Amino acid sequence: MKVWSYDDVAKHASRDDCYVVLYDKVYDVTDFLSDHPGGTQIILKYAGKDATSVFDPVHPPGTIEKHLPKEKHLGTVDTNTVPESLRKEREEQQREEQQRRENLPPLEQCLNLEDFRLVARQVMTPMAWAYYSSAADDLETYHENRAVFRRIWFRPRVLRNVRYVDPSTSILGHPSALPVYITATALGRLGHPDGEKNLTRAAARTGLIQMIPTLSSCSFEEIVNERTEAGKPTQFFQLYVNSDRNIVREMLRKAEAADIQALFITVDAPQLGRREQDMRMHFDDAGSSVQSSSGDEVSRDEGAARAISSFIDPGLDWDDAMWIKNQVRMPVLLKGVQCWEDALKAYDMGFAGCVLSNHGGRQLDFSRSGIEVLEEVVYELRKRGKAPGPSFQLFVDGGITRGTDVLKAIALGATAVGVGRPFIYAFSAYGADGVVRAVQILRDEIEMNMRLIGAPTLRDLVPEMVDVSALHNRGTTRGELPETNVLNPTGERKSHL
Amino acid sequence: MKVWSYDDVAKHASRDDCYVVLYDKVYDVTDFLSDHPGGTQIILKYAGKDATSVFDPVHPPGTIEKHLPKEKHLGTVDTNTVPESLRKEREEQQREEQQRRENLPPLEQCLNLEDFRLVARQVMTPMAWAYYSSAADDLETYHENRAVFRRIWFRPRVLRNVRYVDPSTSILGHPSALPVYITATALGRLGHPDGEKNLTRAAARTGLIQMIPTLSSCSFEEIVNERTEAGKPTQFFQLYVNSDRNIVREMLRKAEAADIQALFITVDAPQLGRREQDMRMHFDDAGSSVQSSSGDEVSRDEGAARAISSFIDPGLDWDDAMWIKNQVRMPVLLKGVQCWEDALKAYDMGFAGCVLSNHGGRQLDFSRSGIEVLEEVVYELRKRGKAPGPSFQLFVDGGITRGTDVLKAIALGATAVGVGRPFIYAFSAYGADGVVRAVQILRDEIEMNMRLIGAPTLRDLVPEMVDVSALHNRGTTRGELPETNVLNPTGERKSHL
Amino acid sequence: MKVWSYDDVAKHASRDDCYVVLYDKVYDVTDFLSDHPGGTQIILKYAGKDATSVFDPVHPPGTIEKHLPKEKHLGTVDTNTVPESLRKEREEQQREEQQRRENLPPLEQCLNLEDFRLVARQVMTPMAWAYYSSAADDLETYHENRAVFRRIWFRPRVLRNVRYVDPSTSILGHPSALPVYITATALGRLGHPDGEKNLTRAAARTGLIQMIPTLSSCSFEEIVNERTEAGKPTQFFQLYVNSDRNIVREMLRKAEAADIQALFITVDAPQLGRREQDMRMHFDDAGSSVQSSSGDEVSRDEGAARAISSFIDPGLDWDDAMWIKNQVRMPVLLKGVQCWEDALKAYDMGFAGCVLSNHGGRQLDFSRSGIEVLEEVVYELRKRGKAPGPSFQLFVDGGITRGTDVLKAIALGATAVGVGRPFIYAFSAYGADGVVRAVQILRDEIEMNMRLIGAPTLRDLVPEMVDVSALHNRGTTRGELPETNVLNPTGERKSHL
Amino acid sequence: MKVWSYDDVAKHASRDDCYVVLYDKVYDVTDFLSDHPGGTQIILKYAGKDATSVFDPVHPPGTIEKHLPKEKHLGTVDTNTVPESLRKEREEQQREEQQRRENLPPLEQCLNLEDFRLVARQVMTPMAWAYYSSAADDLETYHENRAVFRRIWFRPRVLRNVRYVDPSTSILGHPSALPVYITATALGRLGHPDGEKNLTRAAARTGLIQMIPTLSSCSFEEIVNERTEAGKPTQFFQLYVNSDRNIVREMLRKAEAADIQALFITVDAPQLGRREQDMRMHFDDAGSSVQSSSGDEVSRDEGAARAISSFIDPGLDWDDAMWIKNQVRMPVLLKGVQCWEDALKAYDMGFAGCVLSNHGGRQLDFSRSGIEVLEEVVYELRKRGKAPGPSFQLFVDGGITRGTDVLKAIALGATAVGVGRPFIYAFSAYGADGVVRAVQILRDEIEMNMRLIGAPTLRDLVPEMVDVSALHNRGTTRGELPETNVLNPTGERKSHL
Repeated sequence: MKVWSYDDVAKHASRDDCYVVLYDKVYDVTDFLSDHPGGTQIILKYAGKDATSVFDPVHPPGTIEKHLPKEKHLGTVDTNTVPESLRKEREEQQREEQQRRENLPPLEQCLNLEDFRLVARQVMTPMAWAYYSSAADDLETYHENRAVFRRIWFRPRVLRNVRYVDPSTSILGHPSALPVYITATALGRLGHPDGEKNLTRAAARTGLIQMIPTLSSCSFEEIVNERTEAGKPTQFFQLYVNSDRNIVREMLRKAEAADIQALFITVDAPQLGRREQDMRMHFDDAGSSVQSSSGDEVSRDEGAARAISSFIDPGLDWDDAMWIKNQVRMPVLLKGVQCWEDALKAYDMGFAGCVLSNHGGRQLDFSRSGIEVLEEVVYELRKRGKAPGPSFQLFVDGGITRGTDVLKAIALGATAVGVGRPFIYAFSAYGADGVVRAVQILRDEIEMNMRLIGAPTLRDLVPEMVDVSALHNRGTTRGELPETNVLNPTGERKSHL
Repeated sequence: MKVWSYDDVAKHASRDDCYVVLYDKVYDVTDFLSDHPGGTQIILKYAGKDATSVFDPVHPPGTIEKHLPKEKHLGTVDTNTVPESLRKEREEQQREEQQRRENLPPLEQCLNLEDFRLVARQVMTPMAWAYYSSAADDLETYHENRAVFRRIWFRPRVLRNVRYVDPSTSILGHPSALPVYITATALGRLGHPDGEKNLTRAAARTGLIQMIPTLSSCSFEEIVNERTEAGKPTQFFQLYVNSDRNIVREMLRKAEAADIQALFITVDAPQLGRREQDMRMHFDDAGSSVQSSSGDEVSRDEGAARAISSFIDPGLDWDDAMWIKNQVRMPVLLKGVQCWEDALKAYDMGFAGCVLSNHGGRQLDFSRSGIEVLEEVVYELRKRGKAPGPSFQLFVDGGITRGTDVLKAIALGATAVGVGRPFIYAFSAYGADGVVRAVQILRDEIEMNMRLIGAPTLRDLVPEMVDVSALHNRGTTRGELPETNVLNPTGERKSHL
Repeated sequence: MKVWSYDDVAKHASRDDCYVVLYDKVYDVTDFLSDHPGGTQIILKYAGKDATSVFDPVHPPGTIEKHLPKEKHLGTVDTNTVPESLRKEREEQQREEQQRRENLPPLEQCLNLEDFRLVARQVMTPMAWAYYSSAADDLETYHENRAVFRRIWFRPRVLRNVRYVDPSTSILGHPSALPVYITATALGRLGHPDGEKNLTRAAARTGLIQMIPTLSSCSFEEIVNERTEAGKPTQFFQLYVNSDRNIVREMLRKAEAADIQALFITVDAPQLGRREQDMRMHFDDAGSSVQSSSGDEVSRDEGAARAISSFIDPGLDWDDAMWIKNQVRMPVLLKGVQCWEDALKAYDMGFAGCVLSNHGGRQLDFSRSGIEVLEEVVYELRKRGKAPGPSFQLFVDGGITRGTDVLKAIALGATAVGVGRPFIYAFSAYGADGVVRAVQILRDEIEMNMRLIGAPTLRDLVPEMVDVSALHNRGTTRGELPETNVLNPTGERKSHL
Repeated sequence: MKVWSYDDVAKHASRDDCYVVLYDKVYDVTDFLSDHPGGTQIILKYAGKDATSVFDPVHPPGTIEKHLPKEKHLGTVDTNTVPESLRKEREEQQREEQQRRENLPPLEQCLNLEDFRLVARQVMTPMAWAYYSSAADDLETYHENRAVFRRIWFRPRVLRNVRYVDPSTSILGHPSALPVYITATALGRLGHPDGEKNLTRAAARTGLIQMIPTLSSCSFEEIVNERTEAGKPTQFFQLYVNSDRNIVREMLRKAEAADIQALFITVDAPQLGRREQDMRMHFDDAGSSVQSSSGDEVSRDEGAARAISSFIDPGLDWDDAMWIKNQVRMPVLLKGVQCWEDALKAYDMGFAGCVLSNHGGRQLDFSRSGIEVLEEVVYELRKRGKAPGPSFQLFVDGGITRGTDVLKAIALGATAVGVGRPFIYAFSAYGADGVVRAVQILRDEIEMNMRLIGAPTLRDLVPEMVDVSALHNRGTTRGELPETNVLNPTGERKSHL
C-alpha cells in the first residue's frame, strides 16, 4: 500500500476532499462525513491531520473496518514526516498528563468513594471528566440521586449477635459477594487505556458481577475475553436497541454465545440527553476555529454524549421488548423504569425484573430517584398481592456512594444496587486496583453497618429498619444554577463539576 | 423654523423656563414638567440640554406629537454647535457600549435560556438591566417563580414509540409551533434599537404567537407593520386600561383593525409595583445633582417602572372588564389572575381564558406562582364539573426557562405558557437571531423531553406524569436579603441581580 | 461647693474609696458600688475618672438624684484641669463619630426598612449597635421573626376598585394612620442624643401612636412633654413591674396623670435575657484591664441588657396583673403572650388585649413568632365562640419590616402591629426625620399592596387572602452558628450582626 | 537491670527485632507487634525509638505491665544518650504546644458551650482534635444531633411566679444539681495531662454525676481515687463488654467495690465506627514513610478510634446483657438504644433505663437523634400503659450545647441528659476550671430559661410546653460534603472540622 507523507495528507483538508490519519494509516472520509454519528465538524477539525488522539478513546477496535469501505483505506503514513507542530502537541499532551498524575495520592489514602471522584477530577482529561460527570440540564436529578439517601434514616436494633455478618447474595441466580453490581457505563477508555477491562478484572478479584455496556470503548469481545484471563466473573449485558433489528439479533446471538447471564434493555434513552457541561467542553475543544453559525441552525456537534446516540431506536415499545425477550434464553430485564405502573407492567409481562433508574441523572432532568420509585413499586406490587422475589427482581442505581446507601435499598426491597461512576473514577485514577479498593471500601462499610444496624444477613434487613417518612420530601433550593452548567460570558471557564 | 445653537438652548434651564433638545429639535417643556408621568426631576436634569439618549429608548415614536402642543415645538438645533462636553459624553457612551459587546460570546454557545440572561447582564446598559431584571420588594415571588418548577418532578413512561414527537398546538384557535407564546413586556428598545420588532421577526421565523404590549417602546403601528415584512405571525394584544375610556375604545378599534387575534386585559397592576433595584439605578443616574429632599416627601422620581404607571386605571373592576369584552369581536382574556375564585368568576362570566400570572414577580411580592395557582384552578373547576378547554383556556407565565418547565404546565392543564424576560435578554444581546435561537433551544428541549417522558404529543401529557406532592412546599430561606436589593451604605454598588 | 481638680479626683480610685466625675460634677460612689444594677466592675473601670460618656446614654435625667444621697455629691470639677489623656480620648471619640457619619447616605436613598438597619450598622457606636441588634442565645427566634413572614403568601383578588385605599384604623379606640404603632424599646439615647423624643415627634408627624418604655433613657416626663410640643400624638405606656409595688403605683399614677391611653404589662421578661453579642461587646469595652476571674464565679458584668434588669419582679403572676388592672382606668393589656392558653386566660380575665410577642427574640430563644401564635390564638378563640374585637384586641410585634408583613398580620386577625428596631435604626441615623420616612415607606408599601391584593380597606383583608399552609414549617438550618455570636479565639473580632 | 544507650536501642528497628523506649525504659515488642490493637504499623514507625509522646495519652497506667511479659522489659535507657534529633523534636513539640496556648482567651470570655469548641480547636493537638471531633462517614448524624434541637420550639407560659427556680433533680436515686450528667468519653489524656480526673473534680465542684468510661486514659483506679480527693461525687460506669467474660466479671467486681452507683452497658458499638477525619489524621502522622500498599489490602491502621476497638464483643446479645444485670446489685441500663422497640424490650426485661443515643454520631451514620427517639419511646410506652419513671429512666445524649436543649429533653420525658464533647473541649483548654465554668453556663441558661418558660421546677416542664410538630422534619442538604471529610487530592489539608 501507498506510503504517505504528512504533507501530502494535509492537502486533503476540505469538506469535498477529506483525509485523516488514524494509527499511522491514511483514510479518505469524504463520503463518510455526513454519516458520522458524532457530526461532521469534529472530523473537519482534523481534516488532513492525525486524529488518533481524539478518535482512539471513543471508538472500539474494529470501528473503522465496520464503517469505512476497504477502498477508502489509502495506505500508511511515513512517521518520519510527522510535522514539528504535531510532535510538539503530542509532547504537550504527555506533559499535561504527567502533571495531572504527579499529585495522585497513594491509593490507600482513598477512604470512601467520594475520594475517588475528587482524585479523578484532578487526574482525568477535561474532556473525559466532562463526559463522565455531566448530567442533564440543571443537574437536579443528578444531585437528587445522592440527596435522596440523606432523607432515609435508620432504625437500628441493638443486642443482636453480629459477630459474623454476611453481605453476600444471589443476583438472578448468580452469587455475588455484595448486593452490588458494576453497572454499564459507556466509553471507558476516555478514562483509562484499558477501559472496561479494568472492571472485568476487578469483578473477578472481588466476586462482583459486571454489566457490559453496548457503548463500551473496548470491544465486546475484548471485555468477554478479559473474563477468561481474570477469573470468570459473571457478566450481564446492557442493550441499546438499534433500529436495525438484524443488528440487535446479532448482538443477542453474540451475547448468548459469550455466556452472558442476563440482558438489561435500556428503556430510558429513546434519545440521548443534552448534557451541557459535556457540550461546552466540546466548544472549548473545537476552539475558535468553529465558524459562527447562523441563529437558524442548532449545531449538531454537541459533545461526546450526543456523538453516540444514533444507534438507539426511539420507536422502541413494549412489543419490541417482548420480541427481544423471546430471542434469548437468559433472563431479560428493563433498565430505566421510573414509575410503578411500568414496573407492574413488566411484572405482568414476565420480565425477570427492573432496574429503577434515571440513567444517573443524564437523561430526563426531574426524573425521580430510583430508590424513591423502589418504595412506590414495592408498595403497589404488594397492594396487588405481588412482590419482588427470585422471579422478579428489583434493582436501583444512581448516586450510590456509601455502604449505608446500599443497605437502605436492600431494606426497601432491592436485590442489589448498581454502581457506575464511582468505579469509573476509581479506574481512571488507579486502574483495576482502584476499583478493587473501592469495592473493599464498600464491603467494609456494608459489613460494619450491618453490625451497627443489627442485621447479620441481608435477609435481616427489613423495611422497619429504615425511616422513610421524609423520602418524598425532595429538597428544593433556589438561587443561581451551578456555575459549571451555565455559559461564562466573560470567557474564563470555572472549574469542573 | 428657527435654528438654535446649543448655547442658546442652554439658557432655558430652569423649572420656569425649560427647553430640551430631542432628535436635533428644540422643545419648550416648561408647562409639561408637572404632567410628565416619569416625574419632573428627570426632565430638569436635562433642562437646556440634549435629552435624546435617555428619551429615546423609553418613548415610542409619536410621543412628543401626542403630548406637546405644536406651539411648543420651537425649531431645530444647529448640530455644528454641539458643545465639547456633549460630544465627549456621546463618545464615552459609544465606547462603553462597544466594550460591553466585545466579550459577546458567539450565539451558538448559548445552550440554554439562562445563558441568555448571563450574557445580557454583561451586554445591556445598567439602566436597561435594572428595568428588566428587577422585581417587587425582596424578590420572593421572582425567585419562587423559578423555584416552583424545581418542586415538580416527572413520572415518565417508558417503551412508548416516540420516534415522532409533535410539540405543536393551537392557542385560541391559532396554530403555534410550540405550547409557548411571546408574552408582553414593556420598553423593548431599552435593550435593543429595534425593540419589540425583534420579537415580531422571531415569531414569524419560529411559528410562535406574539403578544404586543400596551407599553411597547416601538409604536403599535411599527410592531403590527413589522408583521407584514416578517411573514404574518399571529399577534395578540395586552391591554393596560386607561382611566379615559375613549382612549381604550380607540386602542381596541386599532387592534381590531390591525387583525389582532385576542385581547389580554392586565388585571394584576392597578398600581405599578415598587422595584427597588430599578429605583436605586435611577438614583445612580440622577447622581449627586439630586438635592436632598426633606423626610416629609417621598421622591416620586423612582425609576423606569414607575415612570409608565400613570396610564393605568386603579378603579378597574369586573364590570369594566365585561364592558371591554363587549367592545370587541376577538376573544378577551384576563392576564394576572392569582387565585381559583377569580378564575372561576372569569369562566362563569364568559371570558375566553386566564393567564395565571404574578407579572413576573414585579407587582405583589408573595403572590404565588402561576403554576401553583394552575393546579388549584384546574382542581376547583373540575370539582364543579367545569374544565379548561377550547372555550376557556388557561395560560401560565413567569420563571419559565426550560423545556421541562413548559411540559409541567401543559401536563397540569395549561394550553401554553408565556415567556418574557428570556426573549428580551436574547434580543438585547443578539437581536431577532437571539430570540430564534432561544426558541429553537426550547423546541429542542421540549421534543427531547416529550420523548423521555413517553408523550409523543401534547395530549399525551397527563397529570399522572407529574408528581406535585411538593408543589405547595414553598422553600423558605432566612438570612440576609439579596445584596442587590438593599442600600449599600458605603457607596460602592454591588454587581446587578 | 468645693471645686475639684481632676488630679484630686483621681486619688479616689479604689473599691474602698471611689469617686467619679459626671457632667463636670464629682460624686462619691463608694457605698453605691455593690448596689449598681449594672455591676461593680463597670464603675471601677472609671474610678477616679470622668464617666460621663458611658453614663449618659443609658441613664435618664434624675438618676443620680434618685439613687445617690445628697451628701455624696461632692462638688464640681475644674474643667481647666482636664488631663491631656482625657482630652485626647474625647477628640478621638468625636473623630470616630464624625467618620461614621461621613458616609451617611441621603435619607431619600433609604427605600425600605432594611436599608435603615444597614445604615445604622455603619453609623451607630459598636456598643449601641450591639445592644439594639443583639438577641438571645443563637438568634434562632430573632431570625425566625423575619423568616416566618416569608412562609405566608397572598391569594390576591383582581378587578376590584382600588382607586382609593384607606390604611387607617382605630387602636383601642384611638385613631391611627396605619395599623402600626411605635412599640417600646429601651435606651434610645444610645443611638441618638434625643432618644425616645425622636419617636414622639415622628408619631405626631405621621399619625401613629407611641408606646413609651419603662426603661427609656429620656425620662418619662421628657417624652410626655415632647408630645405637647410635637402635636399631641396618642401615647401608651409599657410597664416593667418593679418588685416594690409602691414604685409601680407611682408609675401608674404618673401615667394616668400624663394622659396615657393604655397600659401594656410586659410578661415575657421575668429575667432579662442573655444576649451574648451584647455581652461580648462589654468585654471588648472593659478591655484587658478585666482581671481574670476564677472559674467559680460567673461575671455579673454582662453588657447593657443585664445592667437594666434588676428592676423587674420575677415573681409577677396573674393576680399581680389583675391588681395592676384594677389600679387604673385605662385599658390594660399583656405584652409578650406566647401561646393560646395564656391569651384565652387574658380574654377570660377581662384584659383589653394581648401583644403576641417574643420580645424581638431577645428573651427565650426558640419562642415562636408572634404571627404564628396569632393564627393559633384566633383559631382557639373562635373554636370557643370568642373572637378578637374592639374589647379584646390582638397585636403582634417582632420582625416586621415590610408593608406585606403588616397586611399578613391584619388579615390573620391582628388590630395592628408594633415596630421597634427599624424605628430605632432610623432615628439613630437620621433623627425624627428618619422615623418619618420609615413610616412613609411603610404607608407607601401598605397602600400599594392593599391595591394589589384587592382590599381597599383593612376590613377587606380577610383570612382567605393569605395562604398559611406553610406557616408552621419553621425552617431549620444546620452548620455553623452565626459568626457574631461565638467567641473568636484568635482575638480579631468579626463585623457585627 | 541493663542500662541502654539510644544508639543501641536503635539497632532493633525491624519487624523481626523491634525495641521501643517508653518512659525511659526499653521494651522488646517484637512478639507483641501483631497483637497490638492499634495495628502493627504505628509501632513499626517508632521501632528502635522513643515512643513515649504518642504512647502516653492513649494508654492508661499499667498497660505495659498488663500486656507485656516481664522478660520483655529490658532495662532503662541512659537519658544522656538522647540523640540530637529527638531532643529537637521534643523542643519543637513544646514550642508548638506553647504557641497554641498563647492565644487562649481568658476563661470568662467563654459565654456558651460552643465557645469551648472553638477554643479547643485552636488549642488541642491536631490528633486529639481529630479524635474527639470526628464522627462517622459524612457526619450526617453528627450534625443532626445538634440540628434536631432547632426543630423543637417552646410554648412558654407567662405570669407564673418564677422568683425561685430549682433545676436540681434525682438521677437513679442520686441527687444532681442539674438534669445533666458528665457522660463517658474515651482517651481524655489526649486533650489534657490530667484526662478524666478533670471531670471528677468538676463533678465534685458542681454537684453533677460522672460516668466513667471503660476506655479512659487515666486508669479506673485513678479516676475513682480522684473522687475522694475532690469531694465524693457520684460516679457511674460505662461498660464495653469484653469477649472474655472473666475480664467483664473482674471489671464489675472492681466497680462495685469502688462504690459505682450505676452501670451503663454500651450497646451501639459492636464494632467501632469508621471516622475518616480521624483516619486521615493518622495518615498525616505516619507521613510519607507509609509504603504504598497494594489495592488488595485495606490498611488496618486507621486512627485512634479503631485502635481501641478490639476489646468489644460483637456477639453481645440480650441474654448477655441480662447476665451482666444479674452480676451486680447496682442498677443496669442500656446505652445506645435507637428505636422504641428496643426500649420497650429493656423496660419489659427489667433494666433500670436506657440512654437514647447514637454515640455522638460516631457509630452508624444516619442513626436518628436521641431526642427524636425519646419522643417515640415515650409515646409507645404510654400507648401500652407504661411510662418512664423512677424505676425506668430515660436519658438522651448527643449534640447538647444549650440550656434550651436540656429543657426540651426534660419536657419530653427524659430524666437527664448526658454531655460529652463540650466538657472535653472545656478541660482540654482550661482543665477542671473549664468544665466548672461550662456547667455554670449551663446552669445559668437552664435557670433563666425555666423562668422564661414559666416552669419553676423540672416537674413543671410538661410536653405541652414544646412544639414538636417539626421534630421528624430532618433537614436535607445537597451539594458538597464537608471539606474536612474528604481527601484533598492536591495535598494541602483544610482546617479541621
